[in-house]
Amino acid sequence: MSSHLPETDAGLLSTVSAATPVHAEVSDRAWLQAMLDAESALARAQAALGSVPAGAAATITAAARAENLDLVELAHQAREAANPVVALVRMLTGVVAETDPGAAEYVHRGSTSQDILDTGAVLVASRALRLVLADLDRVAVALAGLAERYRDTPMVGRTLTQHAVPTTFGLKAAGWLQGVNDARQRLRQVRGTLPVQIGGAAGTLAGYLEQVRGALPDGITSLDEYATRLIAGYAAELGLAEPVLPWHTTRGTFAELAGALAVAGGALGKMAVDVQSMTRTEVAEVAEPAVAGRGASSAMPQKRNPVLATMVRSAALQLPPLAGVLTSCMLNEDERSGGAWHAEWQPLRECLRLAGGAAHTAAELAEGLTVDSERMRRNLELTEGAVVTERVAAVLTPRLGRAEARQVMTRLAGAQVAQGRPLAESLAMAPELAGGFPAGELAGLLDPEGYLGAAGALVDRALRHHRRLTSGDG
Amino acid sequence: MSSHLPETDAGLLSTVSAATPVHAEVSDRAWLQAMLDAESALARAQAALGSVPAGAAATITAAARAENLDLVELAHQAREAANPVVALVRMLTGVVAETDPGAAEYVHRGSTSQDILDTGAVLVASRALRLVLADLDRVAVALAGLAERYRDTPMVGRTLTQHAVPTTFGLKAAGWLQGVNDARQRLRQVRGTLPVQIGGAAGTLAGYLEQVRGALPDGITSLDEYATRLIAGYAAELGLAEPVLPWHTTRGTFAELAGALAVAGGALGKMAVDVQSMTRTEVAEVAEPAVAGRGASSAMPQKRNPVLATMVRSAALQLPPLAGVLTSCMLNEDERSGGAWHAEWQPLRECLRLAGGAAHTAAELAEGLTVDSERMRRNLELTEGAVVTERVAAVLTPRLGRAEARQVMTRLAGAQVAQGRPLAESLAMAPELAGGFPAGELAGLLDPEGYLGAAGALVDRALRHHRRLTSGDG
Amino acid sequence: MSSHLPETDAGLLSTVSAATPVHAEVSDRAWLQAMLDAESALARAQAALGSVPAGAAATITAAARAENLDLVELAHQAREAANPVVALVRMLTGVVAETDPGAAEYVHRGSTSQDILDTGAVLVASRALRLVLADLDRVAVALAGLAERYRDTPMVGRTLTQHAVPTTFGLKAAGWLQGVNDARQRLRQVRGTLPVQIGGAAGTLAGYLEQVRGALPDGITSLDEYATRLIAGYAAELGLAEPVLPWHTTRGTFAELAGALAVAGGALGKMAVDVQSMTRTEVAEVAEPAVAGRGASSAMPQKRNPVLATMVRSAALQLPPLAGVLTSCMLNEDERSGGAWHAEWQPLRECLRLAGGAAHTAAELAEGLTVDSERMRRNLELTEGAVVTERVAAVLTPRLGRAEARQVMTRLAGAQVAQGRPLAESLAMAPELAGGFPAGELAGLLDPEGYLGAAGALVDRALRHHRRLTSGDG
Amino acid sequence: MSSHLPETDAGLLSTVSAATPVHAEVSDRAWLQAMLDAESALARAQAALGSVPAGAAATITAAARAENLDLVELAHQAREAANPVVALVRMLTGVVAETDPGAAEYVHRGSTSQDILDTGAVLVASRALRLVLADLDRVAVALAGLAERYRDTPMVGRTLTQHAVPTTFGLKAAGWLQGVNDARQRLRQVRGTLPVQIGGAAGTLAGYLEQVRGALPDGITSLDEYATRLIAGYAAELGLAEPVLPWHTTRGTFAELAGALAVAGGALGKMAVDVQSMTRTEVAEVAEPAVAGRGASSAMPQKRNPVLATMVRSAALQLPPLAGVLTSCMLNEDERSGGAWHAEWQPLRECLRLAGGAAHTAAELAEGLTVDSERMRRNLELTEGAVVTERVAAVLTPRLGRAEARQVMTRLAGAQVAQGRPLAESLAMAPELAGGFPAGELAGLLDPEGYLGAAGALVDRALRHHRRLTSGDG
Repeated sequence: MSSHLPETDAGLLSTVSAATPVHAEVSDRAWLQAMLDAESALARAQAALGSVPAGAAATITAAARAENLDLVELAHQAREAANPVVALVRMLTGVVAETDPGAAEYVHRGSTSQDILDTGAVLVASRALRLVLADLDRVAVALAGLAERYRDTPMVGRTLTQHAVPTTFGLKAAGWLQGVNDARQRLRQVRGTLPVQIGGAAGTLAGYLEQVRGALPDGITSLDEYATRLIAGYAAELGLAEPVLPWHTTRGTFAELAGALAVAGGALGKMAVDVQSMTRTEVAEVAEPAVAGRGASSAMPQKRNPVLATMVRSAALQLPPLAGVLTSCMLNEDERSGGAWHAEWQPLRECLRLAGGAAHTAAELAEGLTVDSERMRRNLELTEGAVVTERVAAVLTPRLGRAEARQVMTRLAGAQVAQGRPLAESLAMAPELAGGFPAGELAGLLDPEGYLGAAGALVDRALRHHRRLTSGDG
Repeated sequence: MSSHLPETDAGLLSTVSAATPVHAEVSDRAWLQAMLDAESALARAQAALGSVPAGAAATITAAARAENLDLVELAHQAREAANPVVALVRMLTGVVAETDPGAAEYVHRGSTSQDILDTGAVLVASRALRLVLADLDRVAVALAGLAERYRDTPMVGRTLTQHAVPTTFGLKAAGWLQGVNDARQRLRQVRGTLPVQIGGAAGTLAGYLEQVRGALPDGITSLDEYATRLIAGYAAELGLAEPVLPWHTTRGTFAELAGALAVAGGALGKMAVDVQSMTRTEVAEVAEPAVAGRGASSAMPQKRNPVLATMVRSAALQLPPLAGVLTSCMLNEDERSGGAWHAEWQPLRECLRLAGGAAHTAAELAEGLTVDSERMRRNLELTEGAVVTERVAAVLTPRLGRAEARQVMTRLAGAQVAQGRPLAESLAMAPELAGGFPAGELAGLLDPEGYLGAAGALVDRALRHHRRLTSGDG
Repeated sequence: MSSHLPETDAGLLSTVSAATPVHAEVSDRAWLQAMLDAESALARAQAALGSVPAGAAATITAAARAENLDLVELAHQAREAANPVVALVRMLTGVVAETDPGAAEYVHRGSTSQDILDTGAVLVASRALRLVLADLDRVAVALAGLAERYRDTPMVGRTLTQHAVPTTFGLKAAGWLQGVNDARQRLRQVRGTLPVQIGGAAGTLAGYLEQVRGALPDGITSLDEYATRLIAGYAAELGLAEPVLPWHTTRGTFAELAGALAVAGGALGKMAVDVQSMTRTEVAEVAEPAVAGRGASSAMPQKRNPVLATMVRSAALQLPPLAGVLTSCMLNEDERSGGAWHAEWQPLRECLRLAGGAAHTAAELAEGLTVDSERMRRNLELTEGAVVTERVAAVLTPRLGRAEARQVMTRLAGAQVAQGRPLAESLAMAPELAGGFPAGELAGLLDPEGYLGAAGALVDRALRHHRRLTSGDG
Repeated sequence: MSSHLPETDAGLLSTVSAATPVHAEVSDRAWLQAMLDAESALARAQAALGSVPAGAAATITAAARAENLDLVELAHQAREAANPVVALVRMLTGVVAETDPGAAEYVHRGSTSQDILDTGAVLVASRALRLVLADLDRVAVALAGLAERYRDTPMVGRTLTQHAVPTTFGLKAAGWLQGVNDARQRLRQVRGTLPVQIGGAAGTLAGYLEQVRGALPDGITSLDEYATRLIAGYAAELGLAEPVLPWHTTRGTFAELAGALAVAGGALGKMAVDVQSMTRTEVAEVAEPAVAGRGASSAMPQKRNPVLATMVRSAALQLPPLAGVLTSCMLNEDERSGGAWHAEWQPLRECLRLAGGAAHTAAELAEGLTVDSERMRRNLELTEGAVVTERVAAVLTPRLGRAEARQVMTRLAGAQVAQGRPLAESLAMAPELAGGFPAGELAGLLDPEGYLGAAGALVDRALRHHRRLTSGDG
């Protein structure tokens, strides 16, 4: 760490993303490059319409490399204008001028800071989302595999921390899958509509049009046509969507994006808290993938901590309030807000970083999860039949009426807890059930694996949905 | 207010929604009715499949009216189970039994609290969204009208509180319109996918299937088929979507809904803060619709406060954190969370109430907004030409080079501020511009109305989008 | 529920507070009464200074009862002014005029809406906090009891879901106690500084002074003295603090209050999530107090759900974002914000309601918690010695060096997991430990109860702090 | 920017703090150093009690320099354990071993990751708060100066965007001062109680005690005494407070800290939004300090943007939700949470950075604010008397009754708006006021400077409070 860079972050406090690809993709350097990409694409789009010389656009494009600018100095100078673009334009102009002073006249031509910063932010987002989506795809594939493999593996369903009724691990994995599939579908939708920003100082494009007012380029018959083609050309240069209007103060774009990232974090976080619940020492139904050195404790040599789930959950806890900042910042007054715009940048970056880190980490988790079906079975039997009380009550209902059936079962369940008497035994002896059940029938009735409902069919349903979605994604 | 209802809310602290239709649509009573609707739809769906007698379903449906239950008592008893459904089932069963004790056996058959509460919440949301969307439609229509009427009305564009360059009021209204159109499109999308909840105690549907395990209804060949048809039939009864899986702990549904409501609030809030900015005594470009008594102050008889914008903004300030609660609650452990589920209900209600109140209030605002085009023109001239400095600099650039052109303009603008010398005069006298501009050309150059860029074309673009969307909505 | 009150809330979605005292204390009715109390206190404070006739103040005080006003109508009329005070003054004036038209002239004399609404809000908060603090006191007393009783009861300490090293249940309870004690100390501090609001239309008190400008009351020698004494007298009438300045737009007061409530919720929520963790079927170390009917499931007769912990946690999940709204609303422009003020009311009420409900619920939980010391002991032995690996490694360190000691223990712990070989056996046979431990020493070393550190002393420390705080509170 | 550090942040998106001292004080490097400081202080505290050789402690202290460790590598390795301390201990041990292999045995002796990370976080916070408080002190001094200088400078008070009644700029500045004074008082209080973290793996201190179990150091008579003295000694080494208990999962400390930082941001943000309101081109009552180059626009040479207020506001918009994360993370299960602890670090850093940047920026703003008293006076007269309508109504009340007085004034105010008739003229001619006012009296009545209430006395009150606080702070 060189002494002139004391203020940089290497990800020390962002373990979920440090050393994952998305961390670099949203770094200051990446934002700088994206803003420079916006500047050069603008020059090329203007050149394509004939309002900037082709050579100047090429020179600008060649100069617009992050390594040509002093990032730290730029960050410091950004305070002068409350945004980094004023200094960026100055620096970039200087770099271009070294090669070709004439070309320097065409840097940032007709533009405004927000056109560049917003377009840069969209580029960063789009590039980061490519990584996020690729990792979510990995998660989905791995979860579909788990759902299929464990389609019929019984385990106990738990509600409000208590054993409730049987379910299957396949259905649980299918639930995770469904959450992730909804999230990546939405993120893909949002990514596909991310627009360039181009409007000039107050969103009228006047600055851009001024350049050609005196003399329209060949083949263009009106200023309005020029405006329309400039928007389209700029979007095409960057592979982004064309906005209906400049959106300097119509900020739904980032609010929707951040919201979708937070929901993706929530879907992954759901899996993480379930993995944590099932990893508890007393439960031990799943374990994180064993990797040498991972999950170690600084104090306790015997521990293997579920660190992947921990990091995913830590991201999911941070995302919703950060996304909320972006939504709050929609209250953007006038043609450019003094503050509400500026408050978006860092939270947007953090949302991308956290969701990206969570997706990458969750992929490792889902792909490597160790499942202990045998332990699931044993846990299912822990309460010696109590998990099918609902079923027994249903079976008794025609005989006793619902209210009495329920009362009997509540009493027997209480006896089981208080006196440790197994449900089968109680049932066999219950006076209300005189004549009772034939022994064979009772055993079948009390077998948790016989009370799985439509779990298998539901898994199939989720897998069919997954396949449709995935082929549609292609 | 009678003394036995000390704990009720009449909307005293929710001025944005009090006395608007959405307030009642999300009331406790409305939630109760929606949960009862879920119970009766379940009975009918089972009856349609032959697993509940048709007469019992009809009796349950007739009994399932909010006025038949004691809401306050129900709210109190809800503490026993941490949710109101256990007591609701008990009470509803009692009401049904008064008519037909046999039918009472079929209340809540095979079901679980969360199936009813979640489906009820979705119904409340869907009904409230109908109102929200109708009001957003009104807002959009009114804003499209403003954009069209004032398409070419010049006004000053303001950035970071300062006069920047000219724009038009039509373009500003078009920006509001675009935000509202994006928001209602998304809300409509979300509303269209709101699913019923049906899964039974742990999401396997086992409780429902147990009812027919011994004897499948006629025409149904397997338990899985029964499950599939039950889901479909239940959704059809309520006019809601069919979920891929039970979503007891896959909570993206509510997170997406709340997020979309917050974004709608943000779009309306953008309009509100602009109206506030333009309503300032010193600016006075727009005024809220004059209604006798509205906007009065308790102290100052002369004031007419922009109360509609105030209420809309107050809603927009509350929505994002509330929506964040719903996203945070996606961290829902096991097959039913002990707390994360329960934390959703009140914030979801508040999101619906605030967005609905804001939409209703914004409709009044947009439909009645008074626009003072003359004042807009005068404000545009306040800085005596400084708003076209950007343009003049562009015109000078070919003559002086960009850097020098910019420097000259900065100097002249400074002189204007310091010595009050109008820009036209300075320009005429500037030594760098010896020979200067022919007088006529200078006047044209300094006319703000000549520097509106593509504002008109952009308005047309937004209106075309609006028309497409609106016809598509039908 | 009568049909003319469709919009009221009985607490159906607020199970944590429904039917607890705080629910009524923050109801619309209570807010209305508090605002009326502010009006009458103002009249009495002015009467005490001689600027309002004593009889008029008495008439106003008698009239200022919530039951004299139509709350629903008031809530509806509040939309006209974006706050309810304008209509409240009109209605109250009417009620007073019925008794004494002359007295009606003195209602709200010199005042402004915000003086009344803010003072009313502070009164509601102060009254609700009395309840919240009383319940937090109960929680603290109960937790101190648990810490003392179970001071030396060993249980396993869990980190990142895994058994780590031994601790005691007394220390865990002491940790909960410490959190609650910090929270109630802070809340008490905040409550003690809650100020009246009195400033008039723009915070200069001009409206109040105008009443006496022509003729100062007897014994008052200047307008400034009158102002000072009016502030003091108003505060004294209501038993609230005197502000340094009117705080119409200096909103730290409510931000601090809401923050302290959220922290209290967090302290209680910590206890709740621990109770949930320890209540899990597989863990079963504690249980919620058994109350007939409580914790029942709508589907599963055998279940006893930890409903109190569930409700407390649901409150703790909602509080932080709501408190954040109050902090965000500190961005209150000018002398009264158009929206940021209005956005405070409902979130403030919800914070009081949620924290109050959580405190009340937590008191039931802490007072009735069932502790199974025997089960704690058994769980501690589940890993057959692994919980003292840290200790054994420490003991081996002088012999083997730390790195090797750690490696040995990691290997033995791995063998335990993989081959099920108890640690004692592995240790006895480990080649590195040739000569090993005398058998007696090894048994002592592996006894979890011998590795409790200073747990007992720490409990004593927390109890001493608790006693100091509690006696200081009195 | 070297290519092997692509993921670092220079503050490009954090203009409010980039290049301010706090930015470096909360950098990754600073966190690393603080954690190393925790490790070395621990060794020294143990050495002081005789459980670690003094020489080893000295060697560890000398080695524990951030520049001795590879920060980026450390950040990457942190993923293995979901926290950076495991790798830090490994690396630090290596560095120590190079000097003295024996000393290496004493690194992190008896400790746990959270003891080091939490203590490090507290150190970072404490060091950053020193800067934050120093800047807040500067802000307070500057604001006290403004309040004093402009104590009697009249300006218009604005409520809900409209001219309301007169106030003074001194009172406005006094309000800002009061907010800042409350905030720094609270921050100072919080800073003074920031505790070290020391508890070992599960908070019992067992690991630390194990080191001395066999042989208590001289002068120590029990393990409990050793524990107590270790806590005290560790705190003394670092100049931090002694906790009652280890607070691994009692997280009010950070929630309170973050909350106090957000409130400080809110107090500064209030000043910022007022400055923005008063800086509007149409209002122009204040201007930000003129510094060459600052406030420049990339497009508009004439603009001087209020960039300082913009940056302060951008920080204030981000802080509350970030602080909310810290409060939410109080729901920390068991003896160490798997995720809720990890989610705290980055939001805590951001809170410090944003509040620190805002304080530094606000100091520049408050110290350099340009005030245009003349313009304030002119704006006050803009409505030609309407700002004293409240007063006139009060004066007319004894003559006409309050209701009629109010009606008359509403009518005259309406006429002023509609027909542009000045209030003085209307009043002179109003039939209700036949005989009216002597001309001199009317002029006095309508003079806004005569209706300033107790503004001056209130300023004095705030300044006295400020002086008391400031002398108390010293």
